[in-house]
Amino acid sequence: MKPRQTILVLGAGRSSSSLIQELLNRSESNQWQVMVGDVDLQLAQLKCGGHLRSEAFGIDPSNDAVRDQRIASADLVISMVPPFLHPAIASVAIEAGVPVITPSYVGPEMAALHERAVEQGVLVLNEIGLDPGIDHLSAMQILDRVREEGGEMLAFESYCGGLIAPDSDNNPWHYKFSWNPRNVVLAGQGGSATYLEDGQDRLVPPHRVFQNPRKIEVNGTVFEGYANRDSLAYIEKYGLTGIKTLIRGTLRGEGFCDGWDALVQLGCVRDHVQMTWEAGASWANWLRSFTPASEGGNSLKEAVRAVTGASDEVLSRLEWLGLMDDDHGPERLQGTPAEFIQDLLEAKWRLESDDRDMIVMWHRFQYALNGMKHEIISSLYLEGRDSMYTAMSDTVGWPMALAAEAMLQGRIDRVGVDVPLHRDYYEWLLPGLEAMGVRFEESHRSW
Amino acid sequence: MKPRQTILVLGAGRSSSSLIQELLNRSESNQWQVMVGDVDLQLAQLKCGGHLRSEAFGIDPSNDAVRDQRIASADLVISMVPPFLHPAIASVAIEAGVPVITPSYVGPEMAALHERAVEQGVLVLNEIGLDPGIDHLSAMQILDRVREEGGEMLAFESYCGGLIAPDSDNNPWHYKFSWNPRNVVLAGQGGSATYLEDGQDRLVPPHRVFQNPRKIEVNGTVFEGYANRDSLAYIEKYGLTGIKTLIRGTLRGEGFCDGWDALVQLGCVRDHVQMTWEAGASWANWLRSFTPASEGGNSLKEAVRAVTGASDEVLSRLEWLGLMDDDHGPERLQGTPAEFIQDLLEAKWRLESDDRDMIVMWHRFQYALNGMKHEIISSLYLEGRDSMYTAMSDTVGWPMALAAEAMLQGRIDRVGVDVPLHRDYYEWLLPGLEAMGVRFEESHRSW
Repeated sequence: MKPRQTILVLGAGRSSSSLIQELLNRSESNQWQVMVGDVDLQLAQLKCGGHLRSEAFGIDPSNDAVRDQRIASADLVISMVPPFLHPAIASVAIEAGVPVITPSYVGPEMAALHERAVEQGVLVLNEIGLDPGIDHLSAMQILDRVREEGGEMLAFESYCGGLIAPDSDNNPWHYKFSWNPRNVVLAGQGGSATYLEDGQDRLVPPHRVFQNPRKIEVNGTVFEGYANRDSLAYIEKYGLTGIKTLIRGTLRGEGFCDGWDALVQLGCVRDHVQMTWEAGASWANWLRSFTPASEGGNSLKEAVRAVTGASDEVLSRLEWLGLMDDDHGPERLQGTPAEFIQDLLEAKWRLESDDRDMIVMWHRFQYALNGMKHEIISSLYLEGRDSMYTAMSDTVGWPMALAAEAMLQGRIDRVGVDVPLHRDYYEWLLPGLEAMGVRFEESHRSW
Repeated sequence: MKPRQTILVLGAGRSSSSLIQELLNRSESNQWQVMVGDVDLQLAQLKCGGHLRSEAFGIDPSNDAVRDQRIASADLVISMVPPFLHPAIASVAIEAGVPVITPSYVGPEMAALHERAVEQGVLVLNEIGLDPGIDHLSAMQILDRVREEGGEMLAFESYCGGLIAPDSDNNPWHYKFSWNPRNVVLAGQGGSATYLEDGQDRLVPPHRVFQNPRKIEVNGTVFEGYANRDSLAYIEKYGLTGIKTLIRGTLRGEGFCDGWDALVQLGCVRDHVQMTWEAGASWANWLRSFTPASEGGNSLKEAVRAVTGASDEVLSRLEWLGLMDDDHGPERLQGTPAEFIQDLLEAKWRLESDDRDMIVMWHRFQYALNGMKHEIISSLYLEGRDSMYTAMSDTVGWPMALAAEAMLQGRIDRVGVDVPLHRDYYEWLLPGLEAMGVRFEESHRSW
């Protein structure tokens, strides 16, 4: 009989649903006890659903000692808390010799724990959700295959988006929130986006990120892809020195980028200035604040058009959001423009209880081999099960659950602060994901 | 005979020249000893010029104890160090009961010292340079006058610029650095600019700050004014509740704003992304990085025009900077776009040893009184003496020197962390500045 093992899941929010469900599904055969903690005890209880192998508990954010005791006595910790808390959790786990999994990017604080994790013989696996996560696994599998065949990589493009399933798509933005709304509102506003195209570095400032998106067809539907974040960093990460084109980006429905670009041009998604607002003033009045004073004599639509160059379709998309509404206004009286508009969008882009979401990922690889050029397109198209077990929650949670199983079964022989770029990960996890319905379609051509 | 008093000046950089000179000019009659400290001892010695009432000393940034001892034994401290260091210096001075002067904006850390300064009976006077400083003094004098007459303020606009004197203006940007180049490169990139116009709040995101500047004529020359920073905060600061228009901004020479806007649109003055660069690659190649890949087939000029809508004049201004040069490239191999372009601008916009700079400030007040509307325009136009005793250095340093004299002579009966909005300041300082040649011209009209 197997020894009983304890998995500690910290954080029971939206993206933990499928993770917890899948850990419980596999708990009997693995002899796992799954402890789920959240600041909101009821949320933890809801996600455990009274499963016999589960235990829900409340987290007291003012008392880390209790949390740290639970970490030290677990066999594996999965951290689903806000990313800035991961390093503190990982640090306690490393000292106790307990492995850790997080879905988040490795920041400098986490990276600084690498040596100590190696000394302790502990694996701290990060970036093992959807994006980052499944993108790494699926890309590295094909990149390694091309390199083994002796191919020379010329171009790699990779886009991913969390979208709304066609059956639930009833708005002109073709978008509803399946993910942290604040991150959606602030998308593209960090550093400039960088990428490499035809051997030329490109830097795109935040105010041009949503302009001229690339059209990408997956499963018969056309999406828009915009480059974001620092793609140039992936040249080294993915071992692609000498490649001519490397772009990573985000997918949205057709028309989204033009509409969002209008909001960016207006400046009304910015988070770096405080506004105070009068009770009763309308959204139309609010939007007017972002148009130039020189347009004061023109209608709001014309003023918006003057700043943004918006087409009639874009103007009607803004109108659909209620931004030109004279009869309703913000309830909030203080905050950044991003916070005001997030309030509006959370109402308009709410994933309703009978809605389903959708994940689309698309990779294109071009390489030279034996005097010919070759292209592989690999894509994933996955709809959610319902509004709790979304495609977003499944594709974030399932690779984590599979990684947890592999680690506890001793199948991953790695230590330190790691990300799943090595074949040890994709060889074990991709077949597991495929068995659960997360399946990439591949097409090939040569010339 | 007067008692001997000690003034401690911390920081002997570019903006301290006129301050130190003027303190020494007044040192004999006031029985002052002026101690000037800098990390660079030679710089402190240069600024003291061997004056008998001066003492230059080196500051060891790793040892605050020595500095703090000097603060505690001074009669007044003038802090000309980088602004983030002011609160630490003020804190030591307050505990020792020593008054402090700084030219910088009051941030939250400085504001937090107010109560303790009041308890100790110490005045910590900030924002007493040019802008902020002379702008406060000259605006409040007229605002108080209008209010005393019973006028109702309708509009207040205020612009200031540090520019190049006409005789030294030999470049198409009409600009050379008389001030911290990094601040010039990053201008407008913080929060959105805010202002009030005709009763409507306006927020301008960084990527539109330099668009459609206002033309302002001073002394027969036309300048361009762009709104910047948070003008809305001045409604409360200046006691202007109910005013319809309130705009504060920066002045530049004609054509500057269009040119700079092109750099903003390209994204090549951004400070939030790191670039690595190959030795030997040209500035033309560097600039190409900021144009879209879709323009790859076009000439650099056409690609820049496609992003920015730049006119031929703007393109020739970029060309004058060397940004389209195929034969020269950045020496720097790593840094943000802002750091790369600052290197270029420091060479192109250098204030040469025989150059003189210029300060222009322009206020417009509109108010209702006795059934009529009235307008006062008040402007300052001041050229520098030479490339060390610049108009910038004079207008930053002289109000500080005059404030130091007033405080040490016991003429300012105020305590706490303060800014010079009260009449105690302008009644004493404006006549002093006028005697030194800093003279505002006023024009009036009514309708």
